[in-house]
This record gives sequence, structure tokens and C-alpha cells, in this order.
Amino acid sequence: MHIDMLETPAAVVDLDKLEANIKRLQAYLDEHGIANRPHIKTHKIPAIAQMQVAAGAAGITCQKLGEAEIMADAGLDDIFLPYNIMGQSKLERLMALAKRIQLSVTADSEYTIRGLSEAAQQADTTLSVLVECDSGLGRCGVQSPQEASELAKLIVALPGLSFGGLMSYPNSDEMDVFVRETKNLLEPDGIQVERVSGGGTPQMWHAHEHPELTEHRAGMYIYGDRYTLKSGAMTLDDCAFSVIATVVSRPTEDRGILDAGSKTLSSDLLGLDGHGYILEYPEARIVGLSEEHGKVDFSECASRPAIGERVTIIPNHCCPVNNLFNEIVGIRNDEVEVVWPVAGRGALQ
Amino acid sequence: MHIDMLETPAAVVDLDKLEANIKRLQAYLDEHGIANRPHIKTHKIPAIAQMQVAAGAAGITCQKLGEAEIMADAGLDDIFLPYNIMGQSKLERLMALAKRIQLSVTADSEYTIRGLSEAAQQADTTLSVLVECDSGLGRCGVQSPQEASELAKLIVALPGLSFGGLMSYPNSDEMDVFVRETKNLLEPDGIQVERVSGGGTPQMWHAHEHPELTEHRAGMYIYGDRYTLKSGAMTLDDCAFSVIATVVSRPTEDRGILDAGSKTLSSDLLGLDGHGYILEYPEARIVGLSEEHGKVDFSECASRPAIGERVTIIPNHCCPVNNLFNEIVGIRNDEVEVVWPVAGRGALQ
Repeated sequence: MHIDMLETPAAVVDLDKLEANIKRLQAYLDEHGIANRPHIKTHKIPAIAQMQVAAGAAGITCQKLGEAEIMADAGLDDIFLPYNIMGQSKLERLMALAKRIQLSVTADSEYTIRGLSEAAQQADTTLSVLVECDSGLGRCGVQSPQEASELAKLIVALPGLSFGGLMSYPNSDEMDVFVRETKNLLEPDGIQVERVSGGGTPQMWHAHEHPELTEHRAGMYIYGDRYTLKSGAMTLDDCAFSVIATVVSRPTEDRGILDAGSKTLSSDLLGLDGHGYILEYPEARIVGLSEEHGKVDFSECASRPAIGERVTIIPNHCCPVNNLFNEIVGIRNDEVEVVWPVAGRGALQ
Repeated sequence: MHIDMLETPAAVVDLDKLEANIKRLQAYLDEHGIANRPHIKTHKIPAIAQMQVAAGAAGITCQKLGEAEIMADAGLDDIFLPYNIMGQSKLERLMALAKRIQLSVTADSEYTIRGLSEAAQQADTTLSVLVECDSGLGRCGVQSPQEASELAKLIVALPGLSFGGLMSYPNSDEMDVFVRETKNLLEPDGIQVERVSGGGTPQMWHAHEHPELTEHRAGMYIYGDRYTLKSGAMTLDDCAFSVIATVVSRPTEDRGILDAGSKTLSSDLLGLDGHGYILEYPEARIVGLSEEHGKVDFSECASRPAIGERVTIIPNHCCPVNNLFNEIVGIRNDEVEVVWPVAGRGALQ
């Protein structure tokens, strides 16, 4: 089927570009001896995860336990889950997963670590736990090398756990300092930090500038979006992911309405102006979204679309957009080659 | 199962409150002789649509053709689709639907109307078409009563179509003026405007103040959210919909991280400050969302949660949040009574 026959809104991936994006980052990280552990939150599609592993990734990263289970069911056998997992039900699921694949997780508190240890003992397994470090993002993570070293020692001391290293996000100079200081604090006890996991698509081509890094996690690099473009890490020509929409109304000379609103493009702004970039009308601005309507200001465009015309949108943020679709359409030379269900969609628990 | 046993994040609906919300709006609209045509975009769950119809709704409103098909499959047999439907594939699906249920749609252009007429003729059916009027929202809709009357006359003139009336959103005094002027323009031709469909949850208790209105469409009224609370149309005690999340990290004295981010709470702000209201910590502010992390500032709270504690969030906007979950959990007296798949989720085409 030709791309023009797809009903809109459709989320399409250019397979040539997707493959090139996978290959490019893998080659760069290989060159610098950094393990590649792509984050599947962006696509949530086992087939794409398998492409990433086939290209040389050491394993994958998932953000939720449910995602990890879906990926494991599809044959992905080395998964990093950088999240504090807690609560009896989730801990039981986590240990069931640990028994069938290579699994590692993070923790940033004694509470999480003790829960993991008890559950691992009950399940008679050993889980690799990295300490999450907040090196500036202000999200999860211990606040100091002192805290990091104390948690590392706790992981070493408790049964059912092995100390897996340190994790932070995104890569930064502060991360390097944080890691070095933590290593220094652990050295007297003979505790080695073998794995330092960082990440981020905007920073991906600078991964080699962080000497402590042993592993890089990137998600958006396979697709690209307006945010990634702005960061300079990818070019418009690299962008593999777009939304095809139809102009369903032209109420005024300047205004056009697309059949793609916030339930298609998400409401993520990420500091950008407007809700997406329209390839065919670069001067157009998507000025507002209702749930199923995208409002476009075409006033700066020399030519303007007719009702029924289709446009191609590079969204602000590819991850939530992918997550709003049931299926992603893979195209090559404008022909549909594959349709992937977004298997990990809504696996929030 | 007790609500405390649900894995988080979970989207829960208090069934007593849901039923009360359905009953309250129905009674009000019945009292004023206005047809109730609830918008299922909020819940996308056939069972809730059936509750709304059982309570007295004249039919339902869907925003996408795919949603309407799912609702029709579930037995909902009177559906309003206030959208410009175009393109051969969608027009064929629309006419297939028109042949099995009571269906009406909107149009705001000659292009849409001619497409509907041709498709209806080919399918040997008749479709009811309302003219969408922009009475101030600045989205779809004709801009003047003159245009509205011209499209109404075109609908009357073309085969396969019947003129269904006028539609606008949200209810406003401007809408009343627009409708009256359009009626005046149609009177000489003997064209009656039998149905005037307006809507909106924030304005719902003022529907009777719009003399032209014959039908009201509301979506959020069944659930309620922070936006609806701010509008004054519902109280906190009316809010039937919430997200249960767990505090998975407490990196600093003031900061807490929830296992609910933008893929759970959506990024919709709707002019509100922060990303949700935490019932147990009214002074807390959800200051930022990553995809799977919600960052909370507890600095204004006298007591603060421990890691592992669960909290209840009233989201900014219930519709996109509902759309991010695979399942909605119906509870009564804190016990799970039903689990509904969000059947219409992702039915974007």
C-alpha cells in the first residue's frame, strides 16, 4: 500500500532512516568502547528492540516493569530497568523476570534496596542493583557520593543482591565528578564500580567525553523529533518518525484544522513554540490542539493547503506520540512494508 | 480486591460518584427539555456509554469514526459524529455505519458536504448532516450565518443528505445569536432548523439559558477533574476519577517522585498550575513530569509522605489521562467492582 492510502492520522516510520539511525549510534559507541543500551520507551515495539540488539546493542532499557515483561516475552534477554520497584506484587513479578533473563534495576533508597533483597531471597535469585545518582536533573537519585557509597555498601551487604554500578541521567560533567567521588569512597572497601550507565539522545555524540561512562542509554535517536532537531543531535533528514494528517477544515484564509490533536501529537511542548513542524508548510505554526483537532496558522505561508490535503508533521516529542497510537506503520520508498502494534503501550505498572 | 491492592499507577473511577454525575446532568437537562447527548471521548468505554443511555441520554457523541464503530459494535445505536469526514476509505466506513445505526455528522465546507453526498448515493443511504458553526472558539466551523445558511441549502439540495440542524461548541450567547440569524436566513426557503447541538462541561448548568439549544454534549461531567473543579461546575466531592500513584523516591526533604509521569497524567495544563491535585497532600505541587516520573514539591506540607506511600491524584484533564490507560478500574466502597478496557483508545482514524 502506498503511504497516500493510509487513513489519517497515521504514525509512520521511514525504515531506511530508522536503520541508519540505529547503525550510526551503534558505530559511534562501538568506536569508543561504550556499551549501547537503547531505551525502548520511545517505540515500545519488540521488533525494533530486536533490530537494535541485532545491530550490536548490549541489551535494552525499559522504564516500567510491564514493558520489560513484554520485551522479555518477545525474546529480549538482557534488560535494564532503571526504576525503584516496590510493593509485594511488583517485586514478585520482578523476581519472576530476574529468573528468566539478565535483569538489572536501580535503587536510590534503603527502602527500595531492602525490598529488593527480601524479594530476591524469597525467590531464591540474585538481582543486580545499580545506585541511581542525581547529578543535576533533580528527579530520582541520591544527592551525594556519600549517599551513593552507603547504598552501594548496603547492596553488597544484603543477601539476594549484587552491586551493579552507578546510573545517572543525562550525561554531564557533574556526573563524571559524582562517579569519581563515589568510586573513591568505595575503594577502601574493595568495591568496584564496573558499570556506569548514562544516557540521553541530545548528548549522544558527546558520550565519549565522559571518561567514567561504560554504557549509554538513548531512546529518541531512532526516530528523531523537533526537540532532537533543536538539540543539534540530528538533522531533519535523519528524522524517521512523522505523523500524516489531513486538513479537514479551512474556516478562514489563515486557519487550517488538522485531524491530529493532543490525542495524536500529545501536549508536550518541551520548551518549543507550537506543537509540531509541518514539512510541506515550513512557515506554518500549529498554534493549538484540542483532543482531536490541530489548529494551524498558515498566515506566513505563501501557498496554503486545500481541504482534504495531507500534511506530514514532525512532532515535538516522538515518545508520547508513539505511545498514543495503536500501530506504527513502517514505510520504505513510500510503500508500507510493515505495521507494528505498539506492544508496550499502556504497560504503566 | 481492595483499592490498596491495585498496582500503581492505576486509574480508578468511584462508581457511586459516576452514577450520581450521570443522573444529575440527565435530571437537569430533562427538566429543561434539552436532549442529552454525552461525549464518550472522555471514557471511550461502551459500558459507561450504555449507563448514560440507560439514564436517559438521547444518544452519544463520538469524535472519531473509529470510536463510533466501536460504540456501534457494542450496541449504541444513535451516534453523533461532529467531525468533517473525508477521503474514500473513511467515507465508505461512514456509510456502512449509517446503514446500521442512527448516525449524524457535521460539515463546515462544500468540500465535505459534496463528499458525503456522493458517498451516501453510492451506498444508497441518507445521512443527516449538521452545519458546524464557529461561534467564537476559533476551531472548525463556518464563520457567519450567511455561510451556514448557504451550506444548509446545499445539504438540502444534494441527494443522499438530509439537513440535520446546527452544531457549535461551547454554548455561548454568541452561539444563540449565530443560530437565530441563520434561522432567519433559512426561513424564506422553508428550511427548518430542528436540532441545535451545543455542549461543554464547564457550562453545563447554564444550558437552559440558551433558548436555541435543543441538545447538549458534555464529556467530562461523568468524571470531573481539576479543570472542571476550577470552572465551578463540579465539586471535589463530585470527582469520580483519580489516579493512584506510589511515592517511589524521596531524594530530598522537599522532593518526592511519583510513579506517574506524562504517560500517565498527560502534559495537559489547561492553564492550571502544576500537573494534578494530590488529595492526601493538598499543599503539594506536582511541579514537573518526565514520561514515567512525577516530581512533587512537598515543601508547603506539614507532613510529608514516606517512600512506598500511595497518593490519590485528581488530574488536570481527565480525558487524555483515561486515554493513556489500557484499563479503568471501577470501585465502590474502596473495593474493585469492575475493570473496563478502554475500548476506544487509539481509535484515531
